[in-house]
Amino acid sequence: MNKILIIGAGKSSTNLIDFLINTLESKNRHLIVADISADLALKKIKNHPKAEACSIDLNDDLNRKKIIAQADLVISMLPANLHPTIAQDCLEAKKHFFTASYESDHLRSLKEEILKNNLLFLNECGLDPGLDHMSAMKIIHSEKEKGNQIVSFKSYCGGLLALESENNPWKYKFTWNPRNVVLAGQGTSRYISDGQFKFIPYHQLFKRTEQIVFENLGNFEGYPNRDSLLYRKTYQLENIPTLLRGTLRRDGFCKAWDIFVQLGMTDDSYSIELPSQYTNINFLTSFLPSVAEKDVKKVLLNSYPNVDAEVIEKIEWLGLFETTALPFKKATPAQILQHILEKKWQLEPNDKDLVVMQHQFEVYEKGKIKKITSSLICKGENQEYTAMAKTVGLPLAIIVDLFLDGKINLRGLEIPVMPEIYEPVLQELKNHGIVFEEKIETLNN
Amino acid sequence: MNKILIIGAGKSSTNLIDFLINTLESKNRHLIVADISADLALKKIKNHPKAEACSIDLNDDLNRKKIIAQADLVISMLPANLHPTIAQDCLEAKKHFFTASYESDHLRSLKEEILKNNLLFLNECGLDPGLDHMSAMKIIHSEKEKGNQIVSFKSYCGGLLALESENNPWKYKFTWNPRNVVLAGQGTSRYISDGQFKFIPYHQLFKRTEQIVFENLGNFEGYPNRDSLLYRKTYQLENIPTLLRGTLRRDGFCKAWDIFVQLGMTDDSYSIELPSQYTNINFLTSFLPSVAEKDVKKVLLNSYPNVDAEVIEKIEWLGLFETTALPFKKATPAQILQHILEKKWQLEPNDKDLVVMQHQFEVYEKGKIKKITSSLICKGENQEYTAMAKTVGLPLAIIVDLFLDGKINLRGLEIPVMPEIYEPVLQELKNHGIVFEEKIETLNN
Repeated sequence: MNKILIIGAGKSSTNLIDFLINTLESKNRHLIVADISADLALKKIKNHPKAEACSIDLNDDLNRKKIIAQADLVISMLPANLHPTIAQDCLEAKKHFFTASYESDHLRSLKEEILKNNLLFLNECGLDPGLDHMSAMKIIHSEKEKGNQIVSFKSYCGGLLALESENNPWKYKFTWNPRNVVLAGQGTSRYISDGQFKFIPYHQLFKRTEQIVFENLGNFEGYPNRDSLLYRKTYQLENIPTLLRGTLRRDGFCKAWDIFVQLGMTDDSYSIELPSQYTNINFLTSFLPSVAEKDVKKVLLNSYPNVDAEVIEKIEWLGLFETTALPFKKATPAQILQHILEKKWQLEPNDKDLVVMQHQFEVYEKGKIKKITSSLICKGENQEYTAMAKTVGLPLAIIVDLFLDGKINLRGLEIPVMPEIYEPVLQELKNHGIVFEEKIETLNN
Repeated sequence: MNKILIIGAGKSSTNLIDFLINTLESKNRHLIVADISADLALKKIKNHPKAEACSIDLNDDLNRKKIIAQADLVISMLPANLHPTIAQDCLEAKKHFFTASYESDHLRSLKEEILKNNLLFLNECGLDPGLDHMSAMKIIHSEKEKGNQIVSFKSYCGGLLALESENNPWKYKFTWNPRNVVLAGQGTSRYISDGQFKFIPYHQLFKRTEQIVFENLGNFEGYPNRDSLLYRKTYQLENIPTLLRGTLRRDGFCKAWDIFVQLGMTDDSYSIELPSQYTNINFLTSFLPSVAEKDVKKVLLNSYPNVDAEVIEKIEWLGLFETTALPFKKATPAQILQHILEKKWQLEPNDKDLVVMQHQFEVYEKGKIKKITSSLICKGENQEYTAMAKTVGLPLAIIVDLFLDGKINLRGLEIPVMPEIYEPVLQELKNHGIVFEEKIETLNN
């Protein structure tokens, strides 16, 4: 088994491809990188003699299956909605399958068949989900082994900017898929707090933030992310009173973003037919109440208790009060907002991104509460070797390397929560500067 | 053509059935009333010799089609989600089809086939939609004929309580389908105001109310309902600067109801697995932020700027602060809230309901703005002959009567916006006490 296929050669694949290319000679492997753009794939393999690039047409069954047939294992770096097709192909062709995406209901429906075919379908191998599980499970297993009881676990992660690139009022630029950023948090977020279930509708989410501090970086805001209740089982913490997974933004971001949520500007469920010459400020005004006041800033300040001068500054900086014509005939509010954001939140050539992750455990140990804070800070090198590409791609690359070396003998549909995976992966990540700093305090009861 | 089939003999069908029964002898007609409960149908036909009752099993194709085959025209009083099946049956069996429900996309897909078969499928024949269209179109056509220009049209309707039955802090009880009341307003409401499109997400809807006054009844609150933009075409008001359709509640209702919306308690999109002994107050607490404060009332007052003593009184009166166990293992928030509301918002034997409707037109006439306010107030007689049953059922009954008399020659998929229908219907409704009072003022420009 020595033929690797990576589908998708976009931004997040850079470090993944580099790491695996470096193993080709010494471990006698072959790598195929397939992308819609053969040029992009070609660029990424850097003329390595044991690597090849090809174009893939995802809608062409024959083309897709033919490419997959050449590999022993497939890594899909495609957007999550394209995974069902590739997963189905892999099952048919009996290829192992790896992704950095959430395990989906579709994959769960294939669970038995995957196992029956003695295949490994390993998802959630990137940053979040991925590195979060691995680093958390190491602490959870270790505390349990000591006979300690974990009473609270909160885990936060964010893809943000290095301090020196935080040069706009939002302290934010797109370092990953803009559409996902605009839609982030939609649905109901769920967690458990002191034994009480908590359900947060989307329109409350960006108000329910907690302050999270990273040494030398200052303050961040964390908001609860998706369904944390599910992770009681994943993390083998079935009876834990408090469990929350959250997303990090820079301080001040959520209060301003919440205005877009409150107004309905992130809605992707219906399309507006835009009148001709519909501008940024028309778009904003469409979501404001019909009032006599014509000054849009005043309407915002009067109608929304959370709007203050700082929020107005952020909205103004994005150009939402401007009479710039919008280039759409029909679009969802979320698509229009994304268009406006993309003009402003682009990374500059010298910008560097930042990935931050923090686990906060409260552990009952010998009658006292011990607080463990485990933090990761990873800064991007440049626009190609971003912190995001590194933290998403390296865990996946290391896992595939271990699997090909026969060091992971797991089969079935899994996510990386077992020592067999996280021990060697976390060890190897240290060699690449991905290190969790641990701080332990004992709280007075 | 003289055989009428009414499917659904529930609350809203009382006046409909009565009216049509009264025409059977004189016009030599036959009426079949079909319901899941044959007993209920039997009770409604009051032993009339030319009427018969039968049970219908909507899931039994043969049974359903056999019953439909006996009629010349079918009136469906079923919940709107059951209409596609009946409509399809009617098309196959070549029967005319009438409802008080919104014209659906499904029906629109059948448009050509309906016309080809020379059938009339007439929807939106009840109160709202129905009477609203008819009474509005009479004014719109009349003003247009005078050469006047309608510059603003707002129309509100509500199913509420007679003054003497407003004996709880909400001044509200269920006078129609409780589930629809809990889910009312979900999605995005749309209208146009001074030429500017307005989009209101659900979580803003109950804050965007306007005060609506009915003489002798006092103040109501109107909130924008569904997609008013569509009615520019329906009402032949393509270029109108302001058009809004809204729903009425008693003053003070929306501010308190909004708290349920803000908290996420009306969400029907996911299910909660309720721990055993989960109570009303646990349910409420699940939607509150995790804070140190344990007094739920204080949390509400501190976290939501719109919560005041009156809102707390309303929530308390519903029993939401009580430790009453909930009888569910798994339910959506909306289902749980409906259960709590149904215990408190039940009509008492002597309660009477109230239907209110108001059209507000601003018309440009000879250089001045004329304001026309057309209001309907209809009070129920008792729990059987409710205002809702009367205002939903009578327009439909009168339309069917006219159709069978050959006085409506329309064919195809339609809603009642033409003089051929609204003139005789509004005239006949006056004989039943359903009268719009018109007030005309001339505004200073």
